[in-house]
Amino acid sequence: MLEVYAFATPNSVRIPIALEELGLPYELKSVNVRKGEQKTAAFLALNPNSKVPVLVDTEGANGRPFVLTESGAILIYLAEKTGKLLPAHGAGRYRVFEQILFHGTGIGPSFGQAGYFQRQAPEVVPFAIERFRNEAARTMRVLDGVLGSSAYVAGDEYTIADIAHFGWMWRREFANVEFTETPNIARWYERMMARPAVIRAIERVTALAE
Amino acid sequence: MLEVYAFATPNSVRIPIALEELGLPYELKSVNVRKGEQKTAAFLALNPNSKVPVLVDTEGANGRPFVLTESGAILIYLAEKTGKLLPAHGAGRYRVFEQILFHGTGIGPSFGQAGYFQRQAPEVVPFAIERFRNEAARTMRVLDGVLGSSAYVAGDEYTIADIAHFGWMWRREFANVEFTETPNIARWYERMMARPAVIRAIERVTALAE
Repeated sequence: MLEVYAFATPNSVRIPIALEELGLPYELKSVNVRKGEQKTAAFLALNPNSKVPVLVDTEGANGRPFVLTESGAILIYLAEKTGKLLPAHGAGRYRVFEQILFHGTGIGPSFGQAGYFQRQAPEVVPFAIERFRNEAARTMRVLDGVLGSSAYVAGDEYTIADIAHFGWMWRREFANVEFTETPNIARWYERMMARPAVIRAIERVTALAE
Repeated sequence: MLEVYAFATPNSVRIPIALEELGLPYELKSVNVRKGEQKTAAFLALNPNSKVPVLVDTEGANGRPFVLTESGAILIYLAEKTGKLLPAHGAGRYRVFEQILFHGTGIGPSFGQAGYFQRQAPEVVPFAIERFRNEAARTMRVLDGVLGSSAYVAGDEYTIADIAHFGWMWRREFANVEFTETPNIARWYERMMARPAVIRAIERVTALAE
């Protein structure tokens, strides 16, 4: 059995999407980050980094449960476990890793900080808001350029890299990001939102927060 | 031939270290980020995201040059190209991806912003400095815990995940991070600094900035 510790967050939603796409059954376990449940001793024993999502593959390596953190790493694990959503070799394989890293080191952090300084910071600091809004907009333009020459973010095939980018695009309102100046992202997002697996995963993680 | 566009930066140094460890010949091409060379049209044609390092494998896929960005993705490419520094399967393989992602989404961004708000920001904003220094210290404690139970960051074998963490540890002064409260990281760092490949790579990237 695959257990997914998650909440309705940009990175959490990636894992149910991948599992729905792969047709793998899974059990969602709610970690209410609004109530600080990611800081409990029980959760820290699973992930000392105090972040959702966490995957527990109860039939993992050597018959013992395998616990994996970092949603990007979990996506790679699930793709290699099933042989799907990640090319086995060739340039396309490394485009997938490149996009997962570009999201994780560029888009994700800029969206997170843009949201924090606009919504949660104890003081309004205009230069900091501008810094992170500009970086969010800049990285969005880079991604829009990628999607100007291929249907999906790592080429013409749908992969785990699309799922990796999707989470923050779905939660872009936190960062006050819109798609008005990135039409290629807007079109890609519509295609993503039309996938039954994406719809089902969003329904399931959204229900955790209700 | 492998060409590496790089400078003396935390992420750049990863690639020469990996290439030295793997015994692969390479040509370093300087991109002086202090002079803004990462913003030239020629460089943006290689990497629209305007970041070093970039790898060009002149004998890449289908006989055409293969251009790859994102140092984490380049590490994976080099490891899979040679079958070294990344377990082919099993739990250890996913520990490597987990650590590359943990560094790229956690440690790297916190060090970068901690350095920016302490050294480069137009105003002193104490709560922002505290935010990023705390996050740098927190993620360091998580890594120190990992290194409390294994010799290397992804287990008992040296892998590309150690190389991924090394860059910012080498450049930690920018973020005013020290190893005083993370003795396991301190010991691991000494072991890293004793590796001939690491020494050679640091010499080569440092020479780019002279």
